[in-house]
Amino acid sequence: MTSASRVNATTHRAQNLERLFEPASVAVLGASGVASKAGGRPIAYLRETGFAGRVYPINPRHASLFGFDCYPSLEALPEVPDLVVVAIPARGVLPAVREAAALGVGAMVIYTSGFAEVGLEGSEVQREIHEICETTGLVVCGPNCQGIANLYNGLAVNFSTALSEGQPKPGPIGIVSQSGLVGALIASECMSRSVGLGYLVSTGNEAGFEIADAISYMAEDKRIRVITGYVESIRDVGRFRAAALKARVNGTPIVLIKSGKSPEAARAAASHTGALAGSARLHEALFQELGIIAVDNLEALIDATLTFGAGLPAPAGRRVAIFGNSGGFNVLCTDDLGRFGLELAPLAEATLAEIARHLPGYLAAQNPIDLATVPQTDPKTTRRLLQLVAEDPNVDIVISVLGAIRGGADALIAELADYARGASKPMVAAWMASAPSGFAALSAAGIPVFPDPSRAARAARHLLDGTSAAAPANIPPARDVEPVSAVVRSMRAAGELTAGEVALLPALGALGLRVPHMARARTPEEAEAAFTRLGVERVAVKIDSPDIAHKTDVGGVVLGVSSPEACAEATRSILASVGTRAKDARIDGVLLAEMARGSAEIVIGIKKDPLLGAFVGVGLGGVFVEILGDIAFRAAPFDERIALALLRQLKGWPLLEGTRSLPLLDVEALACVVAAISQLAAALPEIEELDLNPVLVGRAGEGVTIVDALMRLTPPV
Amino acid sequence: MTSASRVNATTHRAQNLERLFEPASVAVLGASGVASKAGGRPIAYLRETGFAGRVYPINPRHASLFGFDCYPSLEALPEVPDLVVVAIPARGVLPAVREAAALGVGAMVIYTSGFAEVGLEGSEVQREIHEICETTGLVVCGPNCQGIANLYNGLAVNFSTALSEGQPKPGPIGIVSQSGLVGALIASECMSRSVGLGYLVSTGNEAGFEIADAISYMAEDKRIRVITGYVESIRDVGRFRAAALKARVNGTPIVLIKSGKSPEAARAAASHTGALAGSARLHEALFQELGIIAVDNLEALIDATLTFGAGLPAPAGRRVAIFGNSGGFNVLCTDDLGRFGLELAPLAEATLAEIARHLPGYLAAQNPIDLATVPQTDPKTTRRLLQLVAEDPNVDIVISVLGAIRGGADALIAELADYARGASKPMVAAWMASAPSGFAALSAAGIPVFPDPSRAARAARHLLDGTSAAAPANIPPARDVEPVSAVVRSMRAAGELTAGEVALLPALGALGLRVPHMARARTPEEAEAAFTRLGVERVAVKIDSPDIAHKTDVGGVVLGVSSPEACAEATRSILASVGTRAKDARIDGVLLAEMARGSAEIVIGIKKDPLLGAFVGVGLGGVFVEILGDIAFRAAPFDERIALALLRQLKGWPLLEGTRSLPLLDVEALACVVAAISQLAAALPEIEELDLNPVLVGRAGEGVTIVDALMRLTPPV
Repeated sequence: MTSASRVNATTHRAQNLERLFEPASVAVLGASGVASKAGGRPIAYLRETGFAGRVYPINPRHASLFGFDCYPSLEALPEVPDLVVVAIPARGVLPAVREAAALGVGAMVIYTSGFAEVGLEGSEVQREIHEICETTGLVVCGPNCQGIANLYNGLAVNFSTALSEGQPKPGPIGIVSQSGLVGALIASECMSRSVGLGYLVSTGNEAGFEIADAISYMAEDKRIRVITGYVESIRDVGRFRAAALKARVNGTPIVLIKSGKSPEAARAAASHTGALAGSARLHEALFQELGIIAVDNLEALIDATLTFGAGLPAPAGRRVAIFGNSGGFNVLCTDDLGRFGLELAPLAEATLAEIARHLPGYLAAQNPIDLATVPQTDPKTTRRLLQLVAEDPNVDIVISVLGAIRGGADALIAELADYARGASKPMVAAWMASAPSGFAALSAAGIPVFPDPSRAARAARHLLDGTSAAAPANIPPARDVEPVSAVVRSMRAAGELTAGEVALLPALGALGLRVPHMARARTPEEAEAAFTRLGVERVAVKIDSPDIAHKTDVGGVVLGVSSPEACAEATRSILASVGTRAKDARIDGVLLAEMARGSAEIVIGIKKDPLLGAFVGVGLGGVFVEILGDIAFRAAPFDERIALALLRQLKGWPLLEGTRSLPLLDVEALACVVAAISQLAAALPEIEELDLNPVLVGRAGEGVTIVDALMRLTPPV
Repeated sequence: MTSASRVNATTHRAQNLERLFEPASVAVLGASGVASKAGGRPIAYLRETGFAGRVYPINPRHASLFGFDCYPSLEALPEVPDLVVVAIPARGVLPAVREAAALGVGAMVIYTSGFAEVGLEGSEVQREIHEICETTGLVVCGPNCQGIANLYNGLAVNFSTALSEGQPKPGPIGIVSQSGLVGALIASECMSRSVGLGYLVSTGNEAGFEIADAISYMAEDKRIRVITGYVESIRDVGRFRAAALKARVNGTPIVLIKSGKSPEAARAAASHTGALAGSARLHEALFQELGIIAVDNLEALIDATLTFGAGLPAPAGRRVAIFGNSGGFNVLCTDDLGRFGLELAPLAEATLAEIARHLPGYLAAQNPIDLATVPQTDPKTTRRLLQLVAEDPNVDIVISVLGAIRGGADALIAELADYARGASKPMVAAWMASAPSGFAALSAAGIPVFPDPSRAARAARHLLDGTSAAAPANIPPARDVEPVSAVVRSMRAAGELTAGEVALLPALGALGLRVPHMARARTPEEAEAAFTRLGVERVAVKIDSPDIAHKTDVGGVVLGVSSPEACAEATRSILASVGTRAKDARIDGVLLAEMARGSAEIVIGIKKDPLLGAFVGVGLGGVFVEILGDIAFRAAPFDERIALALLRQLKGWPLLEGTRSLPLLDVEALACVVAAISQLAAALPEIEELDLNPVLVGRAGEGVTIVDALMRLTPPV
C-alpha cells in the first residue's frame, strides 16, 4: 500500500465515523423477522424509534420485515448504504466486509462472534478485517459486539436488552464499553434514574473501530456531558491519547473502569476479548496524565457518571460544607472528606452569625451543620440555611446528608430542588432511609443523590477531579540522542540485546548527563597511571569482561581505592581472583570508575509496554523501591516540570525535599535527568528496558550522577 | 461507698440489665396522649406490639392513655416497675433517677436531652446519674438517647421513626448505636429488605449503660446472628473488651463503624455526644485484636450486617468461585478478589470436565465461569453448574455475578433460591440491572445480594473475617517490674514527670533486657579509668546534666571513642564546650555508653490513651516511622507470639525477616523485648509515654539492645 492511499484512508475514516453515527441509510445483513434475534432486534428498534434514515433489511426469503422492504443482497440495494449491520454466521463475515469495502459502504457493525476471542484462526480473519479498514478507511465496529446506539437520532443498532426496557430518552451520557453487558448495565442504571443517554457503544473485538474512536466522536458533541465506560485493553495508545486530550480540551470528563488489575483478572480478560491486558500501574499513570477519572468498581463508575451527567457548576476548590440532620451522619461524612482528600470549609464569621440566627438555640452554628429536626419541621428555614452556607465564600461544594426524612419530606424535597436549580455551587446529597420519592425528585432537579454519605463524598471528589484537570503537559522538543543511538546501532550490528555501564555511561555522559570519570586499564601498571590521569579522590576498580554479569561474586570489585599504588594492587588482586573463579571469561582488563558522592540513591528506568508504549519510572533506591514498590511512572516524553511532579508523588519524597533532620537535595537537577531519560525513551523505541541504578543525588546545587546503567533492546522481529 | 456495696451494685446491675430488656412492667414518666411525642410514642408502640408486660403511663392529668390506666407518680404505682421510661424536661430528670433508685426500679430509659452534650452544667448532672448507677446497680440508658427495642417480646420503648414504618418482624440482627439516627438507619435498611431485628438500642450519652453492655447482653442471645452498630467513643474499655470477647466465644460476629477518624471529625464528635474521641489507630488496633469487623462507611456496615444476618455456613477459606453471565463482570469481580484478599479457586480437573459437559461449546470451562446466556435460557443447567462448582473441594465461597437478567428471571431466581436453601458453602450474589424481584427472593432464600460485584466480594471477605477469628491471646503472667517502679517512685518523690537514659537504661537492664554498658565520670581522668573498666570496644561520651535535653546542640556528645586517652580528651572537650554554650546548666559530669551494634534500628513505645488504656507501638526506625508512619499498635499486655504477629504487620517487616540481599535478624529476641515492654505498660499505669529509640537488632542469635529511653508519667491529679 502506498502512503498516499493511507492518507486517503485516514480522510475517509473521519467521514466514515460520521456515517457510522449519523447514517442516512442502514442495511441489515442477516435480517430476521424475530425481534429477539440479533438480525431482528435492530430493525425492530429502528422502526420503534422512528429513525429518520432509510432502512434496508437484507434477506432473500422475505419481501419485507417490520414494514421495511427487503432486498436479496447488498448489491441489490437502490443505494450504497452508509451503515451495514452484520448478523450472519462467522464464515460469511469476511466476504461481506470485502464486498462492503468495495462498494464504498461507510461503516459496519458486526454482531457476529467467533473471531479473535476463540483462537488463532479467528484472529487471522479479524486481522484481515483490520487491514481492510486501515487501507480503505472503512469503519468496522466489532466483531463480537452489541453494536451502537445514537439516542439523539434514534439510530439503535445495539441489541442490548437495556434498550428493550423502553427507549431511553436522549440525554447527556455517552457510554463506550469493551464488554457489551457492562455497557448495557451503565445504560440501565441511567435509565432507571430517568437520566438520558446520548450514545451507547459496544466495541467488542475492535477490528476497525476502537474505544478511542468512540471517545473522540463523543468529545465533539456538546450535548454529551460525560463519557463513561469499561476498558479491558487499549489497542492504539496514540489514538486513545488524542481522543482523551480532545475531550479534556472540550471540557468533557471521562470516567473509566479498567479491568484486569490482578494477574488473575488479566488472564480472564485475555480469554474474554482476545486482548492483551497491559500493566495496571502503567494504565493508572496514563489515565492520571490524561485527566481520566479511573474508578475501581461499577458503583463508583455509575455514581461518577450520574454526577457529571447532572451538569453542576464546577467546584472552585476542595472546601466542603456538610449540611445534615444527624450528628452521627455528619461525623461519618467528615471522616469521608479526609478519605477522599476534601476539606471541611471554615465558614466565615458572618455566615456563622447568620446561621445562628436561624438555628434553634440548642444547635451550634458550625460546619458540619447539624440541623436535627429542622429539615422536617421547617423546610423554608432549611433552604435559607442551605443558601447561606452555599453563598459563603469559603465553601466550594455542599454535601447534604439527610436521613430518616419521612414526615414533611415532600415540602423539603421541593425546597431543595428549587434551591438547586439556581445554585451557583455544586451540591451532592445523601438521602438515607427517607421518602423514596426524594431520589427521583432531587435527581431531576440536578442534585446527584446517593443512599450513603460516603458515596456522596466520593462523588464530590470526582467532581473536583473532573474539573480541576490541569492543561496537558508540553511535549519537550526532541533531544539529540545520537550517542545512545550509536550504542544501539553497534548492539544491533553485534546481535546483542543488553548493554552495561561500559558502553552506556560514556554515551549518557555525551548527552550532557553527569557520569563518573572512568578509565580502562589492562594491567596493574596501566591502572596506576590511569588513576593519576583521572585526578579524582576515590575510584572503584571493577573487572571489565563481557562475560561476567555479577562482578562481586567472582571477586571482581574493589571499592574506595584512593591512591595510584592501591589501584595497582586492587587490579592485581581482581585479575588473580577472576582468573581463578571465572576461568573461561574473556577479560578486557579493569575499569576504574570515580566513586561519586550523593545524599540519596535514586532508580530511574524505562519500561516499554507492548500496548501503551514507553514509560519512565522513578523511585528512591533501597527499601522504597525494593520493599514498598514506591515508583512513579509517566509515559515518555515529558519535561522537567512534569518530572518534578512525578518525584513529588513518591512516598519517599520527604527524603528528597528535606525535613527537620535532612537537607534539601538537588531535586531540580534530578528532574532534568528524569526528563532527559524520558526523551531518550521517546526517541529510541528500540529500548525495551533501561535501568539507571543507582543515580546519586547530592544536596541542592551539587547535582546528580548516574553511577550504573543496564539497557535491554526489543528483540529483532 | 464501701467495696461491699460496689459488689452488691454489680450483682444488681446484671439483674437490672435483664429488667431493662425483659421487663414485666414499664412506667412512662411524662406520658402523653400524642403518639408523635416522645412521651406518647412508647405507649402507642407498646399498645401496638401487644407487649405482654404491664404498662403504666404516669401523668396526673389523665385517667388513661392509649387504653392503659394512668398514675399520678412513680410512688403511686401498684408495684415497683422494672423499667421507667423518662420523657420529662431535663430539670426533673435527676430527681426522678434518685426516686427510682430509692424505690428499687431496675432500669431507666431517658430520652431527655440537655446533659453532657450541651456543656459543663449538664455534664455535672450526668456525672451524678452515673454515680447513682455505680452505687446502686440501677441501669440508665441515656440520657439524650432514642431508647431501646426488644423485637422478640414487643418491648418497643425506642422513639425511632424506623419503628413507625410498621413494626419490624423479630429476627437475627442486633443493633446498637451511639447515634440514634444511625441506628434507626440500620434498622430501616434491614426492614426494607424484610430482614428481622432482635434489638435496636440507642445509648445516647451513656450515663449508666454503655455500648459494651448492649453487646454483652446480645452476645448471650442465641437468636442474634450479628451485632452491628455505630461507635463514637468507648467509655469503659475493660467492659467493651469483655463484651466483645464474649461475643467472639459465642460465635457472634460484631460489625462496627467507628466515626471520628479525621482530626476534624473528632471535633464534630466531641460536640455531638460530649465524648472524647480516642485515636483512630488505637481503635483499629483494639478492634483487630478483638476480631471486630471494622468498616469505613454505612453501606459496608449494612452489607456486612445483612450478610451475617443471612446465617450462611462459615467459609473454610478464601478460595472463591466466580459464577457470572458476562466476561466483563467476571474480570471486574476477579479484580475485586485481589482487592479484598480473596483468591480465585483453582477448580479440580473433575469439576472442569463436568462443567465442560454442561456448558455450550463456545464457552470455556474455567474459573471465573462465564455462563453467557445460559442463566436465562437454561436455569436448570445453571443450577447444576452452580452445584458442581460449589461442591468442588477447592472452593470455599461462591460469588454469583448476574446482570441484565429479565426474560427468564423468575425461573432462574427459583433455581438459585432452591439451591441456596440446602447449600453447604456460602454464596453471595451480585444482581445487576435485572428483574427487581430478585433482590427480595434471593435474600429471602438466604443469599446476601448486592447491586454491584465489588460489594458482593467485600461481603465475602467480611464473612471470612467473621468466622476466621483466632482465639484471643493468652495474657502473659504479670512480670516483676520493680526496677522501673522504683524509678517511677523516685520521680514522683522528686516531682518529675520525665526521665531519660541515665535513670531508665539501668532499670531496663535490671529487668533482664540488654542495654549498653555504661559508666559515669566527673573528670577526664575518671573517664579514662572508666573506659578501661568498661572493657568495651567503643563508647559514646555524652554530657550528664538534668538541664540539657538536646545534648548535641551544645557540643555535648562525642561518638566512636575507642581508647582511654581519646575518652579523656572527649570528656575535656565536652566539658569545655558545654561550659561555654550552656553556662547555667547543672553538670554532673559525663556518661560513657557502650556503642552497641545492630543491623536495624527499631522504635518501641508505650502510649496511654485516656479512654482505651495502654498500647505498645513498634516500628522500624528511620524512614519507616518518620516518613511512612509505619507503626503497629496493640493493647498491653501481650505475649511474644502476639509481638511477633505485630512485627509482621509492619510494611518494613521484610527488612527484619531477611530478603535476597539482607540477613534474617533476631526477630525472636525482638519479640521478647516488645512483649516485656507491653507487660511494663500494663503493670505501671502511671507511664503515659515511653520511647525506646533506637533499639538495635542484631542478626539472628545476636540479640537486641535498647540504646536510648525516654519516659513521661501521667501528671498527678
